Amino acid sequence: MTTPSRIALALAGVGKIARDQHIPSCAEGADFDITVAISRNGRIDGADNFTSYDEFLEKRRDIRAISLCTPPDVRFEMAKKAIASGFDVLMEKPPAATIGEAEALRELAEKAGVVLFATWHSRFANGVEPARQWLDGKTIRKVEITWKEDVRRWHPGQAWIWEAGGFGVFDPGINALSILTAIIPGQTIVEKASLAFPENRQQPIAASLKMKSAEGAPINAEFDWRQEGPQTWDIVVETNSGLLRLAKGGAELYIDGELQVEGPDREYARIYSRFAELIRSRRSDADFQPLRLVADAFLTGERHTVEAFIE
Amino acid sequence: MTTPSRIALALAGVGKIARDQHIPSCAEGADFDITVAISRNGRIDGADNFTSYDEFLEKRRDIRAISLCTPPDVRFEMAKKAIASGFDVLMEKPPAATIGEAEALRELAEKAGVVLFATWHSRFANGVEPARQWLDGKTIRKVEITWKEDVRRWHPGQAWIWEAGGFGVFDPGINALSILTAIIPGQTIVEKASLAFPENRQQPIAASLKMKSAEGAPINAEFDWRQEGPQTWDIVVETNSGLLRLAKGGAELYIDGELQVEGPDREYARIYSRFAELIRSRRSDADFQPLRLVADAFLTGERHTVEAFIE
Repeated sequence: MTTPSRIALALAGVGKIARDQHIPSCAEGADFDITVAISRNGRIDGADNFTSYDEFLEKRRDIRAISLCTPPDVRFEMAKKAIASGFDVLMEKPPAATIGEAEALRELAEKAGVVLFATWHSRFANGVEPARQWLDGKTIRKVEITWKEDVRRWHPGQAWIWEAGGFGVFDPGINALSILTAIIPGQTIVEKASLAFPENRQQPIAASLKMKSAEGAPINAEFDWRQEGPQTWDIVVETNSGLLRLAKGGAELYIDGELQVEGPDREYARIYSRFAELIRSRRSDADFQPLRLVADAFLTGERHTVEAFIE
Repeated sequence: MTTPSRIALALAGVGKIARDQHIPSCAEGADFDITVAISRNGRIDGADNFTSYDEFLEKRRDIRAISLCTPPDVRFEMAKKAIASGFDVLMEKPPAATIGEAEALRELAEKAGVVLFATWHSRFANGVEPARQWLDGKTIRKVEITWKEDVRRWHPGQAWIWEAGGFGVFDPGINALSILTAIIPGQTIVEKASLAFPENRQQPIAASLKMKSAEGAPINAEFDWRQEGPQTWDIVVETNSGLLRLAKGGAELYIDGELQVEGPDREYARIYSRFAELIRSRRSDADFQPLRLVADAFLTGERHTVEAFIE
């Protein structure tokens, strides 16, 4: 049952990310009841379960909000239909496969007067919003992003990430870019990129980006999927009054070496609080800058071939 | 001397495109006098000639409009400075090297209240505006783009087009995409792309794009730089009431096989009429959709290697 203060939500795509994050976050949070689930294989106990998306759209016009947790390849068509049916839409990362899809969704949502929320879950890590606030008003001298992980450990058997459109090392790298663009203002520009493609793969296993902030500060990013041993997801920002470091993918914040913020992961709890706030204030949050930076890296990047990747 | 009805214009970059197109089009047109030229090597007789861009910006604050005809790699910084100095800016194709640069320029121009005109010269070919008008209100069933030319003939010795950021076969292909996006409404989406890279080059020599119009019509594009013999720059649009064909890069328009529009090239005359109209009405025309389609093709494209290209 939906109490008056909670929003009835439909969730499409009952897979791993839904079970690990979306379902518990809604259950534990104060804002949403998952009233409907749409999934070919998965089910949510206690929800009205549909296997057909079109049937759901037709029968449950009482629901006004939907979370799309389906794989990226079908997400665009589902989002278009949801917008056309007047739903407020939350989209899992990445919210679109191309800049074109992103622009189209933004235009459609604006015309339809619905809320579009393109989530970038790393932006909701513990240290990110405090980092943004600390940086506000300071002069940024330089940013260094180091995102080095072992693909065998974090993406075992995920063949699709190596295929055309799968993003390769930008699949984790886009998390770093989503934090970057949340904590520094304006349009970040890709000046140079170098992409390392294994000779047997369609997508890069490593990438090096030279970027510039809107205010002219150099931003370097090193993405590498060949990292064994310790894993690194760090962003270091040198300013005119101190050194900021986001570690562990944004979970920990250090200022001049001193730990400021840590604690258990609350990314999806914050995502659903934000979605509720957007719905109540009728505003969208659909920033596609992280995806745009990846597209610009592919557009301008120098390709070089490295040894085959055999999982 | 500038008569009251003509606009004083600065032209930066006195190279081949300036001499072939911009200078004669201004001279023959009714709207602009090239009062100032800025170029490291070139000069325009009768104009106030500068070799330093910064010196020009400082000394000729009386001029309010500028055409940027410099090579793409320096264009972004020059455009930023021109906008910051309050100039109305015309940018040669391509107006930016990345989507990020494009977004940044659009934001800066909007904030500064200046006119930004990102020209796509093919959009001003004879057949394009009549084609747009003829298509208006019709249902588009299918679009086929065939852009096949001999790179040795049209780009001799242009090493930069093969380097990272040089676009390769998209250098001419973006002309087709600029026409496409001028004659059909809404955001065109890249669904699939296949890019053929010569084994010794950084940029594709051929590309095949499967796209979809905002209204769902399939759009296929074949770009190829290996075309010997007859050269083809055609766009064919099947509609619910007739077949439209733009030939010779938009210069000729056929409806159901019958020639409607031809005649001498007036692309740059129309570009300067448009720039004058934009300045007088204080509106910008900065559509980066053609560049966005190229970025999306690189982002989602399947790469394959083809034989080395030796010029």
